[in-house]
Amino acid sequence: MRTRAAVAVAAGQPLEIMEVELDGPKAGEVLIEVKATGLCHTDEFTRSGDDPEGIFPAILGHEGAGVVLEVGEGVTSLAVGDHVIPLYTPECRECEYCLNPKTNLCQKVRATQGAGLLPDGTTRFSMLDGTPIHHYMGCSTFANHTVVPEIALAKVRKDAPFDKICYIGCGVTTGIGAVINTAKVEIGSRCVVFGLGGIGLNVIQGCRMAGCDQIVGVDLNDGKAEMATHFGMTDFVNPSNVSGDIVAHLVELTGGGADYTFDATGNVGVMRTALECAHKGWGESIIIGVAPAGAEISTRPFQLVTGRSWRGTAFGGAKGRTDVPKIVDWYMAGKIEIDPMITHKLTLDEINHGFDLMHQGKSIRAVVEY
Amino acid sequence: MRTRAAVAVAAGQPLEIMEVELDGPKAGEVLIEVKATGLCHTDEFTRSGDDPEGIFPAILGHEGAGVVLEVGEGVTSLAVGDHVIPLYTPECRECEYCLNPKTNLCQKVRATQGAGLLPDGTTRFSMLDGTPIHHYMGCSTFANHTVVPEIALAKVRKDAPFDKICYIGCGVTTGIGAVINTAKVEIGSRCVVFGLGGIGLNVIQGCRMAGCDQIVGVDLNDGKAEMATHFGMTDFVNPSNVSGDIVAHLVELTGGGADYTFDATGNVGVMRTALECAHKGWGESIIIGVAPAGAEISTRPFQLVTGRSWRGTAFGGAKGRTDVPKIVDWYMAGKIEIDPMITHKLTLDEINHGFDLMHQGKSIRAVVEY
Ligand SMILES: [Zn+2]
Ligand SMILES: [Zn+2]
Ligand SMILES: [Zn+2]
Ligand SMILES: [Zn+2]
Repeated sequence: MRTRAAVAVAAGQPLEIMEVELDGPKAGEVLIEVKATGLCHTDEFTRSGDDPEGIFPAILGHEGAGVVLEVGEGVTSLAVGDHVIPLYTPECRECEYCLNPKTNLCQKVRATQGAGLLPDGTTRFSMLDGTPIHHYMGCSTFANHTVVPEIALAKVRKDAPFDKICYIGCGVTTGIGAVINTAKVEIGSRCVVFGLGGIGLNVIQGCRMAGCDQIVGVDLNDGKAEMATHFGMTDFVNPSNVSGDIVAHLVELTGGGADYTFDATGNVGVMRTALECAHKGWGESIIIGVAPAGAEISTRPFQLVTGRSWRGTAFGGAKGRTDVPKIVDWYMAGKIEIDPMITHKLTLDEINHGFDLMHQGKSIRAVVEY
Repeated sequence: MRTRAAVAVAAGQPLEIMEVELDGPKAGEVLIEVKATGLCHTDEFTRSGDDPEGIFPAILGHEGAGVVLEVGEGVTSLAVGDHVIPLYTPECRECEYCLNPKTNLCQKVRATQGAGLLPDGTTRFSMLDGTPIHHYMGCSTFANHTVVPEIALAKVRKDAPFDKICYIGCGVTTGIGAVINTAKVEIGSRCVVFGLGGIGLNVIQGCRMAGCDQIVGVDLNDGKAEMATHFGMTDFVNPSNVSGDIVAHLVELTGGGADYTFDATGNVGVMRTALECAHKGWGESIIIGVAPAGAEISTRPFQLVTGRSWRGTAFGGAKGRTDVPKIVDWYMAGKIEIDPMITHKLTLDEINHGFDLMHQGKSIRAVVEY
């Protein structure tokens, strides 16, 4: 079939909107009609050429929601008409990782996914001249239709709006999951969240849901404070306005250090601050942000020997087919909010404008509706 | 009263054996007769002048065992004749840290202990000319008698030999505790231990007690392998004999990376290796060793984002008054071994020879018997 897609033809180029060929689903695969997709910083990381593992041409996008149009041979857990969210971290439920409750990093299709291919080692997308187009993070939601492995699709309720729940495909789950799956924040905790963008806001609402007593937000942009407060932030700190050591300031503000801290900036200097303002004896710091290629984190080992832990999270530690439908339920029940974070709605033709908004800091999430 | 002690008169000098004055116990303090003390690398770190926080003159030593001779006012948990092990990490059971199950870092007497003083801000030791001599780590076991706060004494059974259980005051508890309290290693785990000295051997026997399937020991000295094997090591790796990347070698040897890794070297480069050979998704690396002043650990944040955790431990995460008596019981029951690690017995007059043996790598533990 043919479908419309925004194609990343080469590193650093704007996406090109074009008709592409899409082959039907092979065994274990599912064809979906994408109804909406968010634009995430990771898409831009690859589009811009900063991602050393970027492959072109490719159809980016990994934060979508849609409807099953056709299932390949052997697909049993999904049927035509099901509503789904594609998962860049799949859940096969049979690999060593899926069977270990400590991790969500299913390895079943990792090698091919990293190479921009479906599990059989080929692509379903191609240019009209026959040139193969790579998949991206196993999702490629910047196309009106895409083919995804069955194990990389979470089935969700049909009354949930696509233009909101698409965000659960990455940002919402990453932020909330970092709190509830990775940190396992306890009621009454004091937390510090660095970076009040789309991920940080979701960390904040995760902390609120977890019953935190104090939720400190840290950002260089005062304009971020209002929205963060709406999502549950109790204290705002702009490091530009702190005279003296930011670590000492945050330790003081949290009464001795935070029980949990979260880096949602991707800046390795901020990651160090986040670790060091965690409470002596038991504070844990969770890295969410993706650092530039080659960047390293550092600290004195004394910080760890005196009881701090340094950890990280990918996709919020969520096992997607199991956890994503629950988060959709929480949204529908009003336990979490998404609507105020969807600041811009675009058509596929306007997608490059979405990246402009991201760079200008004007959007929390821009969503393309098909 | 007068007692004999090995006094660190100045940084970098040999200890001087001399008679010193010792005042009796004040309120909340206990006078003990030290029966035996181990010589630990931390004593040497301070004696040598490498410890930027070292204070002189002082009576070093923090790995002792002895008998209560006199109790100060208000002491209720100990009586004359009780056998005790001094604790450089006390357990007051009422501070914020003691009441938190996540940490053992009791803060009740931290400030004065760090300044080489008892909790009332004074010393009990002095030279015969009246010059005060500082306490060390709240213990000062390089004296035949010492005064210690009640909260820094673990009461142990009377049939346990002082010249063996003194080692539980630091090395044994640090190594075993890192496994059972900090890492909480599960049955069937695969572990890697870096550094097969006195701490590393105790990590190994902790791993054996915890039911590990694989216990890899790493050391640059092939001579360490025999003893480590005796304590439970299943695989020995000398990095000098590994061509290529040591991380890749250890990941291969452990079938994908270790569930838990332990640094007992204090070398920040080794600490990085220990983190990076931990298993993707769930591997945890525990720093035990004390790094040189100013040294920093580094890694790419990707190592954490893909599921590794970087942690540390002090005194094996043990709450001393509660846990140390249990470890003494384990020793008496044969669940752990200590005797082969006590490689040298010395008199107090020979104590400087003990540090020579340490530098020559000839001793695991040298113990002074009074
Ligand atoms: Zn994303
Ligand atoms: Zn799996
Ligand atoms: Zn020691
Ligand atoms: Zn305490």
